[in-house]
Amino acid sequence: MHNKSFKLKKRALPKVNDLAKSILGGDFTALSKGITLCESKRIEDRKLANDLIKICLPHSGNSIRIGITGVPGVGKSTFIESFGIYLIQEQSKKVAVLAVDPSSKRSRGSILGDKTRMNELSVHPNAFIRPSPSSGSIGGVTHHSRESIILCEAAGFDTIIVETVGVGQSEIEVKEMTDFFLLLMLAGAGDELQGIKRGIMEMADGMLINKSDGENLLNAKRAKREYQSALHLFPMAESGSSPKVEICSALQAFNLEKAWQLVDNFVQLTKENDYFEKQRQGQLKAWFNKSIQEQVNLRLFGNKALNKKINDLEAQVESREVSPTEAAEVVFEEFKKSLN
Amino acid sequence: MHNKSFKLKKRALPKVNDLAKSILGGDFTALSKGITLCESKRIEDRKLANDLIKICLPHSGNSIRIGITGVPGVGKSTFIESFGIYLIQEQSKKVAVLAVDPSSKRSRGSILGDKTRMNELSVHPNAFIRPSPSSGSIGGVTHHSRESIILCEAAGFDTIIVETVGVGQSEIEVKEMTDFFLLLMLAGAGDELQGIKRGIMEMADGMLINKSDGENLLNAKRAKREYQSALHLFPMAESGSSPKVEICSALQAFNLEKAWQLVDNFVQLTKENDYFEKQRQGQLKAWFNKSIQEQVNLRLFGNKALNKKINDLEAQVESREVSPTEAAEVVFEEFKKSLN
Repeated sequence: MHNKSFKLKKRALPKVNDLAKSILGGDFTALSKGITLCESKRIEDRKLANDLIKICLPHSGNSIRIGITGVPGVGKSTFIESFGIYLIQEQSKKVAVLAVDPSSKRSRGSILGDKTRMNELSVHPNAFIRPSPSSGSIGGVTHHSRESIILCEAAGFDTIIVETVGVGQSEIEVKEMTDFFLLLMLAGAGDELQGIKRGIMEMADGMLINKSDGENLLNAKRAKREYQSALHLFPMAESGSSPKVEICSALQAFNLEKAWQLVDNFVQLTKENDYFEKQRQGQLKAWFNKSIQEQVNLRLFGNKALNKKINDLEAQVESREVSPTEAAEVVFEEFKKSLN
Repeated sequence: MHNKSFKLKKRALPKVNDLAKSILGGDFTALSKGITLCESKRIEDRKLANDLIKICLPHSGNSIRIGITGVPGVGKSTFIESFGIYLIQEQSKKVAVLAVDPSSKRSRGSILGDKTRMNELSVHPNAFIRPSPSSGSIGGVTHHSRESIILCEAAGFDTIIVETVGVGQSEIEVKEMTDFFLLLMLAGAGDELQGIKRGIMEMADGMLINKSDGENLLNAKRAKREYQSALHLFPMAESGSSPKVEICSALQAFNLEKAWQLVDNFVQLTKENDYFEKQRQGQLKAWFNKSIQEQVNLRLFGNKALNKKINDLEAQVESREVSPTEAAEVVFEEFKKSLN
């Protein structure tokens, strides 16, 4: 098996070199191909993906990575479209948009379905939009997203927007791979602080109240004050930057420069106090740990014979023929054998 | 290495047999020893623990496993003391109390510190209280808790109370190893529904408003109505039993029979509709999966040389000398070698 994969690698390496070269040259098709390679679950593809990342990594990092979250209905897609266009036109940025969907089962509200709605951004030569993958990767559901960021940066994108899709786990995952975590909110009717998980607010580096237009504007301004004072009650953020709240309207392209200032001020401050670099180092470490897990899981669950064994044992565990720990020992012995 | 561990096992097996025999005979000291063995991180101990579980598993299961959670200050320890005494005296139960603390760093409010406060229960011959362990186990922070439940049942305890310590992850862990998940609450001052994560309420099979005594009683009764109607808005529970709300006062031993009825009614209904067995089977399956992970992690992180390698590579990853995925490949190759 080792020989076989070595042969494959030998044959495929020039291909990866070519792919990397095209990505570094800013070729969108190559970038898409590279991301698809990183999303693959096949062991051979994983090896190629690792080679690709290895080549691209030294050319990455020179960007601002923005994570964006918010409840369904808050207008994430519209905001990303509007904000992306603003960044390109007013800040001369090159913008890549990625989605992280741990469940990967629902496409409701994800940019998978919304790509066609991002009319202006999706066709802009300085923008790249990557829909969320159709199925989760083995070992770390969002493993490939970190790799996609690297590839986008290697392709010359200096602003990476990572959208959370779904709820719960994805916020943590996205927070762990971005520099600035933005929470989009709505001005509700008197229940500003309800419904928002305190945990998510604590994770945010900045908050934007979207749909602040028309008769909603007054509500939004009041909500801004309320959120801002609520945030004062939180312990000081590790970044050294206390989260700010702004209002905006993605639909009317109102206050998008304030949204950008939230990000830009944070980046400037954290680059000065060294938190920016410290956070990125921590993220590399976390990525390393997830990669170890993935290496193991690929061999555990990517191996058909072993997978069948696991399924058989699972049935025996459920019917109490064998104890869970005993069954796990059997799996581990088979796993060991499969590695030789 | 295989030979060595085989020898160890051979010598130690009679010891495990003796230990199991004493546990099955209801010996508290043996039970404590067995739990300590299950909490150990040493590979040799894990093998012995697996043997012990294998012997005890067929003698387990004949119990009701109750998970208890609630914010700090809700009176969990006092409730467990009061409820435990009630179960022993009025329901002729034998009660074991365990704590699950994923962080294992704080002992604030855990029964580790509270054991001495459970004056009556801790000395009762029909009660067994196990403080939370001083450090988390490798691979699945609460792995050993499932095993502790098995050992307590094998020792003749028919009611297992598992207390969550800390917040967040522990609720999910405890929910995954118990039959009935009880949420303790307080009647607040007008903010009944705030501060309680909806997710935790959705996990609960029943809710108890504690400290319903004195001038708090009226508030508690109102809160009960409010919670009960809030629960009606939730989708039907998989158990087929819609969660009920009761009031009680652990301090005054008021309404403890209502607390028991919450549990008892749920158990009767779910035994009839087969959810009880279905849930336990699912929990065995989850335990199996966590055990596989533990088998791997024991060898990955329990191996000193490998651990040093991982730490060295971590530093190189942080300083960008090597890519995270590349470093993970190196770890996996070393891991493979270490298994031979």
